[in-house]
Formats: sequence, C-alpha cells, structure tokens
Amino acid sequence: MNKNEHCSCASGTGTVPQEELIDVIVKSIHAVLQSEPRGGNSTPDSGLQSLRIPLGISNRHIHLTSKTFHQLFGDKTEFESMRPLYQPGEFASIHTLTVVGPKLRSIPGVRILGPLRNYDQVEVSLTDAVFLGIDPPVTNSGNLHDAAPLTLVGPNGSVYLEKCAIVANRHLHMTTNDAARLGVKEGEYCKVRIGGEKPTTFENVLVRTNDNWKIQIHLDTDDANAANVREETFVEFLGKMGKDT
Amino acid sequence: MNKNEHCSCASGTGTVPQEELIDVIVKSIHAVLQSEPRGGNSTPDSGLQSLRIPLGISNRHIHLTSKTFHQLFGDKTEFESMRPLYQPGEFASIHTLTVVGPKLRSIPGVRILGPLRNYDQVEVSLTDAVFLGIDPPVTNSGNLHDAAPLTLVGPNGSVYLEKCAIVANRHLHMTTNDAARLGVKEGEYCKVRIGGEKPTTFENVLVRTNDNWKIQIHLDTDDANAANVREETFVEFLGKMGKDT
Repeated sequence: MNKNEHCSCASGTGTVPQEELIDVIVKSIHAVLQSEPRGGNSTPDSGLQSLRIPLGISNRHIHLTSKTFHQLFGDKTEFESMRPLYQPGEFASIHTLTVVGPKLRSIPGVRILGPLRNYDQVEVSLTDAVFLGIDPPVTNSGNLHDAAPLTLVGPNGSVYLEKCAIVANRHLHMTTNDAARLGVKEGEYCKVRIGGEKPTTFENVLVRTNDNWKIQIHLDTDDANAANVREETFVEFLGKMGKDT
Repeated sequence: MNKNEHCSCASGTGTVPQEELIDVIVKSIHAVLQSEPRGGNSTPDSGLQSLRIPLGISNRHIHLTSKTFHQLFGDKTEFESMRPLYQPGEFASIHTLTVVGPKLRSIPGVRILGPLRNYDQVEVSLTDAVFLGIDPPVTNSGNLHDAAPLTLVGPNGSVYLEKCAIVANRHLHMTTNDAARLGVKEGEYCKVRIGGEKPTTFENVLVRTNDNWKIQIHLDTDDANAANVREETFVEFLGKMGKDT
C-alpha cells in the first residue's frame, strides 16, 4: 500500500473530483497486481535472475552397500569409478547389473553409482516400473519403507531385495546460500518449467541443501521425455509451492 | 481493498457520493478478478465448472492405408476390430506389427488402430524413439513431412517407411460447443494440469474440434508416466495459452 491509496482531501467541502479518485484507485490496483506475479506462489528475490539451474536427467541406476556389491561381484572385486558425476564426490562406476522384476522381465546394464552407501536402492522411472511389473512409491532417496521388490543379477551371484525399488521424487540440489537466494529452504517444495516443443511445469520438486553441492535439478527420464529434452538444458524456476498447490 | 483505505467524504456538488462510487468500483474489480483465474491466460466461461475432461493415455500405435495393411497381412486378410475406442467410430484392431528402427532394435506387438486411413503413421513416445534410435518430430497426426523412418514387419511381409514416425502432440478432442464453453477454438493451444504425487502442467495442448467427438485429452505414455498416472483420471483445464507462453 502506498500514499496514492487514500484521497488527499484538500478542499473544505470534503470531496475530490471523481476522475481523480478513479485514477488513484486504478493506479493502486495496477501497483498491487504488478507486485504479485500471476500464477506464481512466491516472490523470489533478485538473485533468481542470475541463478541458472541446469537439468540433470536421472536414468535408472543402483546404489549398493559394500556387502551387497561383493555378493554380486565377488569378494576380490574393487568398486571402481568410470567417471565423476556433476555433484562433487559422486561417480558412475564401471559396474552394471541386470535387474529382474516379478514378471521375469529384465533390464540389463543398469549402472551402479558411487560411492557405496548404507542401503541397497534401485531408482527407476514409471516406464521401467510398468515394464518390470512393479509398483514402486514416488519418494525420497533412502526412504525404502514401501519400496518394491527386484532381483539383481551380477557376475558372481544374485540377490532378491524385497524393498529396493523407488521412483525418486523430483529434487533440486543446492547450497543453503542458493536456497536463500531462491527464497526456499531444505525440505520445501518448488515448481520448475521447461519450455520448447512440449513445455511442461513440474511441481513437488523437493529442495535439498548441502554446501558441497552445485545447483542442479534432477528429473527422471519420464519427466525429461515428457518435456522432449534429451540433452543439457536449464529450467525456469517458478517459485516455492503454495499452500494451495 | 477495504473500507479503511479511503476517506469517507460524503458531501459534494454534481457528484455521486464517493462511498457509493468506490463500492461500485470495488465490486467491478472483484467481478473481473473472479472471472480470471490467477495464473490462467484466458477467461473460460462458467461451463468450465461442469465440463470434466477425461484423460486418454496414448500408447504407441500404428495407422495404415489399406494397401500397406494388405502388403503386411496378405490380400485376403480382413481388417478386423478387437474393441471400440472412446471416440465414436474408432477402434483397436486385432492386428499388431513389430517395428524396427535404424539401430535394428525392435518393439513387438504394436497395435494398428482403425479405421484404415489414407496415410501410414507410427505414433511413438520419446522413450520409444530413443530406444529405436530415431528422432521424430513432435507434430500433429497426419503431418509426416519431417517424420522419421521405421521398418514395419507383419506376418505376410515387411515395409520400410521413410517418413512414418512422429511423437503426436498433446491434443484435446471436443465438440465446437465444448470449445465455446472452454473459451477456445480449433487449432488453438491450451494448458492442463494433473495433480497427485507428481503434479504436472502440460502446455501446447492442441484443440481439435469435431461434433462427433466426446471431450477427451490425449497425452502419450511419457506425459502420463511423468505425472504418475496409469489409469483413468480427469485433468484440470487451465485455459488457453497466452501470447507469452
């Protein structure tokens, strides 16, 4: 609200000309509407302008414990990096497995990402899940409470994991500093948009902060294919999810 | 705006009371704001409230000419319906083909939809396209100018079609009457949203009108999987695409 919002009664008769009054009201409404982006749910600060968010497309992949890794590859096999990933310390290993679902359909060559973790997890897209015949939950990495079963087959053996498969939810890695610039916090949800031939807005994107991370959004192959992107691109940040979305 | 924001100058000569004027203006603005959803780009009429739009998920499928059908299935084979589809007159046939891409990878069991048409067309998702090793355009059904090549294999022979594969664009079938209720016209583009665990807004949805059609939106399996829907659902109509979207 600014000074133009109330009439400046100057004369002794207590009225201002109607035209002037209308003009004041119209200007006030314009000001309010301009300050609130239509369709947005938050007002990120000006840092947003300079913060480009690269897209990382997550193909299906596996995380393993050291124990499970050695069951599948043998006690003497070392877990070895093939190439570093975008986030510092993370890497694609040289090792792949065949995953087999309850319909006995299989997907070969599913890569194990490093470093090894303290849980076994297979992240798939819904397309993969339908093919494999499983019904995994959409959830955060590491939350395996309702995860679906798969069999993993390696060169030295196989394991049946009753709760390992999830569809990882959309998430946005960033530092706490980047989060402050975008007006969001760890654990909150936001919206992003990808333009192009099949423009698509993705909601429920989980904000995850860690001061070692570079800003990057992770979408799975279904999301990326829906928006018709196959290569590196940047997403448009649309703000924090509102209470009504 | 509330009453505290303006002074209540009551007297005047040749004017209506300011309170009355303000009241009229405030009511007018309320009416305008309520008719235009924030974040929407158009102003659908009240028919929108009663018009539910069911989602049809388009899996990969084939349309053939009579000539190509008989090349693949033999001269004496009749083109036969297995079950009617949602749109009047359209049906899933009993016939399927194996499609083979330039990497020689194949997808078996791709169903031919009827009735037969005056062009040969294979509609795939981007997931399928990546698997097959083709780069089809996102375009309208029937626009094969830049379509990608595939080989179709049937029980009586095979054909190589140099321009047959497309990713069908998102589209919304409806009657001209429904279109009028939604404030859109044939050939225009609109936006729809699917809620749930992976809420997603789909833009560039082409409006197609035909007075024989029942209202229904067609999204491909990538779009549906991105939004985590596998079964019948309804979409939320967000209005016509604006000039800036």
